[in-house]
Amino acid sequence: MLHGGFLEGDAVMVAGAAGSGKTTLALQHLVNGATKYEQNGVYVTFEQLPDQIYRDAEGFGWDLRRLEQEGKFQIICTSPDLMVNKNGAEELLGDTIRELRPKRMVVDSLSHLQMFVPEGDVRKEAYRLVMFLKAKEISSMLLWENPQIIGSSYSISDVGLSFMVDTIVTLRAVEIESSMRRALGILKMRGSDHDKHLREYEITSHGIRVDQPFTQYEGLMSGNPRRVASEKFVDMFRSVSEKKKNAVG
Amino acid sequence: MLHGGFLEGDAVMVAGAAGSGKTTLALQHLVNGATKYEQNGVYVTFEQLPDQIYRDAEGFGWDLRRLEQEGKFQIICTSPDLMVNKNGAEELLGDTIRELRPKRMVVDSLSHLQMFVPEGDVRKEAYRLVMFLKAKEISSMLLWENPQIIGSSYSISDVGLSFMVDTIVTLRAVEIESSMRRALGILKMRGSDHDKHLREYEITSHGIRVDQPFTQYEGLMSGNPRRVASEKFVDMFRSVSEKKKNAVG
Amino acid sequence: MLHGGFLEGDAVMVAGAAGSGKTTLALQHLVNGATKYEQNGVYVTFEQLPDQIYRDAEGFGWDLRRLEQEGKFQIICTSPDLMVNKNGAEELLGDTIRELRPKRMVVDSLSHLQMFVPEGDVRKEAYRLVMFLKAKEISSMLLWENPQIIGSSYSISDVGLSFMVDTIVTLRAVEIESSMRRALGILKMRGSDHDKHLREYEITSHGIRVDQPFTQYEGLMSGNPRRVASEKFVDMFRSVSEKKKNAVG
Amino acid sequence: MLHGGFLEGDAVMVAGAAGSGKTTLALQHLVNGATKYEQNGVYVTFEQLPDQIYRDAEGFGWDLRRLEQEGKFQIICTSPDLMVNKNGAEELLGDTIRELRPKRMVVDSLSHLQMFVPEGDVRKEAYRLVMFLKAKEISSMLLWENPQIIGSSYSISDVGLSFMVDTIVTLRAVEIESSMRRALGILKMRGSDHDKHLREYEITSHGIRVDQPFTQYEGLMSGNPRRVASEKFVDMFRSVSEKKKNAVG
Amino acid sequence: MLHGGFLEGDAVMVAGAAGSGKTTLALQHLVNGATKYEQNGVYVTFEQLPDQIYRDAEGFGWDLRRLEQEGKFQIICTSPDLMVNKNGAEELLGDTIRELRPKRMVVDSLSHLQMFVPEGDVRKEAYRLVMFLKAKEISSMLLWENPQIIGSSYSISDVGLSFMVDTIVTLRAVEIESSMRRALGILKMRGSDHDKHLREYEITSHGIRVDQPFTQYEGLMSGNPRRVASEKFVDMFRSVSEKKKNAVG
Amino acid sequence: MLHGGFLEGDAVMVAGAAGSGKTTLALQHLVNGATKYEQNGVYVTFEQLPDQIYRDAEGFGWDLRRLEQEGKFQIICTSPDLMVNKNGAEELLGDTIRELRPKRMVVDSLSHLQMFVPEGDVRKEAYRLVMFLKAKEISSMLLWENPQIIGSSYSISDVGLSFMVDTIVTLRAVEIESSMRRALGILKMRGSDHDKHLREYEITSHGIRVDQPFTQYEGLMSGNPRRVASEKFVDMFRSVSEKKKNAVG
Repeated sequence: MLHGGFLEGDAVMVAGAAGSGKTTLALQHLVNGATKYEQNGVYVTFEQLPDQIYRDAEGFGWDLRRLEQEGKFQIICTSPDLMVNKNGAEELLGDTIRELRPKRMVVDSLSHLQMFVPEGDVRKEAYRLVMFLKAKEISSMLLWENPQIIGSSYSISDVGLSFMVDTIVTLRAVEIESSMRRALGILKMRGSDHDKHLREYEITSHGIRVDQPFTQYEGLMSGNPRRVASEKFVDMFRSVSEKKKNAVG
Repeated sequence: MLHGGFLEGDAVMVAGAAGSGKTTLALQHLVNGATKYEQNGVYVTFEQLPDQIYRDAEGFGWDLRRLEQEGKFQIICTSPDLMVNKNGAEELLGDTIRELRPKRMVVDSLSHLQMFVPEGDVRKEAYRLVMFLKAKEISSMLLWENPQIIGSSYSISDVGLSFMVDTIVTLRAVEIESSMRRALGILKMRGSDHDKHLREYEITSHGIRVDQPFTQYEGLMSGNPRRVASEKFVDMFRSVSEKKKNAVG
Repeated sequence: MLHGGFLEGDAVMVAGAAGSGKTTLALQHLVNGATKYEQNGVYVTFEQLPDQIYRDAEGFGWDLRRLEQEGKFQIICTSPDLMVNKNGAEELLGDTIRELRPKRMVVDSLSHLQMFVPEGDVRKEAYRLVMFLKAKEISSMLLWENPQIIGSSYSISDVGLSFMVDTIVTLRAVEIESSMRRALGILKMRGSDHDKHLREYEITSHGIRVDQPFTQYEGLMSGNPRRVASEKFVDMFRSVSEKKKNAVG
Repeated sequence: MLHGGFLEGDAVMVAGAAGSGKTTLALQHLVNGATKYEQNGVYVTFEQLPDQIYRDAEGFGWDLRRLEQEGKFQIICTSPDLMVNKNGAEELLGDTIRELRPKRMVVDSLSHLQMFVPEGDVRKEAYRLVMFLKAKEISSMLLWENPQIIGSSYSISDVGLSFMVDTIVTLRAVEIESSMRRALGILKMRGSDHDKHLREYEITSHGIRVDQPFTQYEGLMSGNPRRVASEKFVDMFRSVSEKKKNAVG
Repeated sequence: MLHGGFLEGDAVMVAGAAGSGKTTLALQHLVNGATKYEQNGVYVTFEQLPDQIYRDAEGFGWDLRRLEQEGKFQIICTSPDLMVNKNGAEELLGDTIRELRPKRMVVDSLSHLQMFVPEGDVRKEAYRLVMFLKAKEISSMLLWENPQIIGSSYSISDVGLSFMVDTIVTLRAVEIESSMRRALGILKMRGSDHDKHLREYEITSHGIRVDQPFTQYEGLMSGNPRRVASEKFVDMFRSVSEKKKNAVG
Repeated sequence: MLHGGFLEGDAVMVAGAAGSGKTTLALQHLVNGATKYEQNGVYVTFEQLPDQIYRDAEGFGWDLRRLEQEGKFQIICTSPDLMVNKNGAEELLGDTIRELRPKRMVVDSLSHLQMFVPEGDVRKEAYRLVMFLKAKEISSMLLWENPQIIGSSYSISDVGLSFMVDTIVTLRAVEIESSMRRALGILKMRGSDHDKHLREYEITSHGIRVDQPFTQYEGLMSGNPRRVASEKFVDMFRSVSEKKKNAVG
């Protein structure tokens, strides 16, 4: 579903609630780039300590330090303060970009950026960052944390960030059979049409694994889907009436 | 459904969430005008870099640069700042209008305009722009981004922009059979009545393709429709009872 | 449902979302008054250019200019600024009222008035206007734009305007059989009781046509009604069991 | 359901949306008091012109002017400004109370009072008024306008007025069989328990007529009730199976 | 369900909408304490006049004046102003506590307190009061008025008062069979687990009577429950098929 | 489900409404650590008096004072004021950490911290605290109180605290068979995937007991689940038709 390569300079927003695996998806994207597609990657975080990220990655079998030593990967752990001025992106990322020549960059996260930027400027600052990366032909993956876990009304962002990205991937918690499962959908992909299925995904010991599309559910995006009961009933009914026919006949 | 020509000076609002294909629809409208109806077009964007627009269009097989060279099309990439003063529209668009004599203009987007205009002035500024274009007998297509992807309550805009347009087209994400599909509906068309169907549309490699109306669903506008189960059940039931009758008889 | 004549001095609020045909209903009310009931009419608009109104009316076969020449109709296109002071209504409307002696007046719209009046004064200003017209024994039709298209919670106005009108007509979009249809209901009629049906209406080439009441739907006012499935099922079931009885017998 | 007499000094809140017949109910309460229970009444209005009230009452066959001449009834039409100060109620109502010795008073409405009182003071002012009337042993009926017509969440007031009244009557619009009907319920009655049924009521040419309780509906308070379908289905099913039994037997 | 004695120093919050019987429950708690458990009680009210409370109690057969004369009960009718300062509780309640040595105290109500306390201080002031009473080993019953009557989303308080109480009792209006009935539930009881049933209760002429738990309903807490229809249907179906079997056999 | 040991330095958020047993779960976590895993524990509370905590624990058979005397446990009862400055955590917790060498710490609660911290700083302060504990290799359990008891939309926090924790446990009230029962789910566990079941839990006299996963319910997270009726119906239907077959045969 999410194939290895995005177009150069494309910006992808990954929106999900706490625990949806945004960080895992982002690391996997960079590790795959570095190890399978010869695309170096940079992970910019406003949120986590680098140690945490190394440790998380290890849990999935990803050796970030080795990638770092091989010059294929770098973590930039910074405060959003430093990024929020006209030349902030250049000052903060310029050297790394010149040295590593990355093709992939993760920004973790726009929601954190939003906390440090005066209301109304988030969009401007985020836009400047995206444009800076586009100009460098670096594809960016921008993480966005939805505060809402489940709910019948779903919005990506109330600060209007979605126009600036080429692709929007949503990660949703869905309650199915009294368990909290996970659905991944693509809400936007600039240009051609895309896979419309809402697919189950799991966070395995090797990273995110995207599974089969869901079937027979309505309302997955609300997090509170209902089994399409009639289908089941119809099946059951048909089989019962078959037996009846036989019994009568 | 959306036939080639709007009335001269008509203003059409196209409202949709991120990923609904508003930009594609808008470009298609201008390309069709320029190539099929001898109506030159202008694309005013507050949001995207021109390069992005050319690249997007190419993906659909639309050669905007050629149209530009033929004097049939132009992109104006500007900041909303410039437009927001009494003569802003004239200063910004006047020359282009005199040279290109466009009959179609796209404004991408009113939602972006809203970010730069003090609260309470959006409507006034947008109205002035629409009236300016009406006076020039240019039909305008105004894009509006709904932050909400799905939700049982649907509003076009909370700044009261809808009165000023002649037509409102809504583009909605709808979850059907565990997939994110798309519905297009016309909510307003000044004057005579219009097609009331909610139709499925797809973003193909040739642009937006409007398909058949949906049937057998309730609640499409909420994005979370339910199959009208009884219908199916009734069909099934009838067929079962037919068999039964035969079996008995 | 909405018979030709209102009581003298009555105030009617017509509330509906964008595209619900409020303007059409209002023009029709004035045209009918002027041509069938010998009641002259005035259309006060804060929103549209007169040209647009003439053109819209022509689309329905209504020749407003002729009515104007016959002294039966007038459009007053003004800014709400002018109306919002103690003698504003008198200054703005006084001459026209003395000359035309209208019995019907449309105000398009209270929602627009609201944009220009400091919060908290809307009600006062609107009340003064309604009382001014009542004192002149002119029945008024006040248009109100609901921002919400569909939604399970429905309010007329959050500025408490409804107490001041004698009648409230609501125009609602309703999604039925995957189409956007229209329902008209009377929520208030001062004094005696009134038609309680929610009726379908259409905007035809001759104006608004109010059709039969809806039947077999629940939740019309939410815009997202459900077919009362059991009824259908019951019918079907009965007919099936009839056949069965016959088959067995 | 609402018997003729309230306890002396009781305060009753009548809460309903526009068009629910609050004013009619209030007038009827006063007219009944004056003509059937020898309880004089005063109608305090912040909202309507007296003429409108006389006219409305006439429509129901109530001759308020005669009651006025007989010293049994009085309308006080005032601005809330006058009432909002420490001795406002005394100054405004004192003379009338001494002359007419009313046992019933209607205040139309607390919602209007709210418009003129600084936020946070409404409760205090309303409380002072209620206490003033209680001290005079006058039962009061306080009208409250809910902005919401229908909606799954129902609150009486967000300014905490309900604690101060002894009885709360709610008037709700309910959509039943595609018509807008009306339900009356008692939400509070200080002291003993009360009729819990939600009853249909109608506004007839003789005033409010409270009818039978609703049956077989769920969700009346939301305004969007659902027929308890299973009941019907069960009935139908039973009758069908009876026939079948006969047919087989 | 609510047995006679709470632990010494326990704080109980009773949350309910207007008309839910909070005051009745509170008076009953004090009267029971004074007459059955030798626990004197104090009723602190910010809301009602003492006369009203005596009268209400009389309606249930409770003679508060006699209890007062016997030194078992006292009403303190005060303004929240007096309580809101560091030693307010001591100054206001100290003498009474020393004289009456109460073991039970009712505070009617925290919602009223909230009106007089600057936003953000409610929690602090309420906490100070609760701690003051805990230190005196007086169990407190704190009344809280929910503005919402019914609604699918239910919160106790948005000012975070619930952490400070040991027990939370909720009183909810529930619409069942087209009547407004009442449900009582315990949402919190510090320490051991508690009765989880939602029970019907009634306000009788002798006070609150807690009845049997509800059964066969879903969604009671929303106030808009649905009968678990399938159960009924299943019963009916079974009985029908029994008859059929007999008929056939 | 929640096994004895968390990873060193892990931060766990426990989110639940009033009465969900957050404090019990937290105490149990510390008691288990001290008695079964040789991990000393500290309970930091902004909310309760230590006496209350000792008493609560006793109710579950936990002798906190003995643990304290054995140097395995400590309560720190403080005001959030003291913690909210750059070195607050060090000053407040430093000595205790050096003496007790705790591996587990409970913070009761982040919601309380939020009340004393200027809006916008909560996240920063909470983050600093979590990082301080991580640096000391102390696993932290952070309690968060959801104001909402039930509701179809569920969010953990609107101040974006969830990114900073490794694990999020949610405790939800669920209305099942007209009782208020309890569900525990894990919404996030950094690194590998986790138990996705929503499990029933009870507060017994020995502490929290996590029971079997729920089955046959949809919508548990909303607090207002629905039995998956069709299942039951299908079972019943099948069994009926079996009997029928036998009867006929």
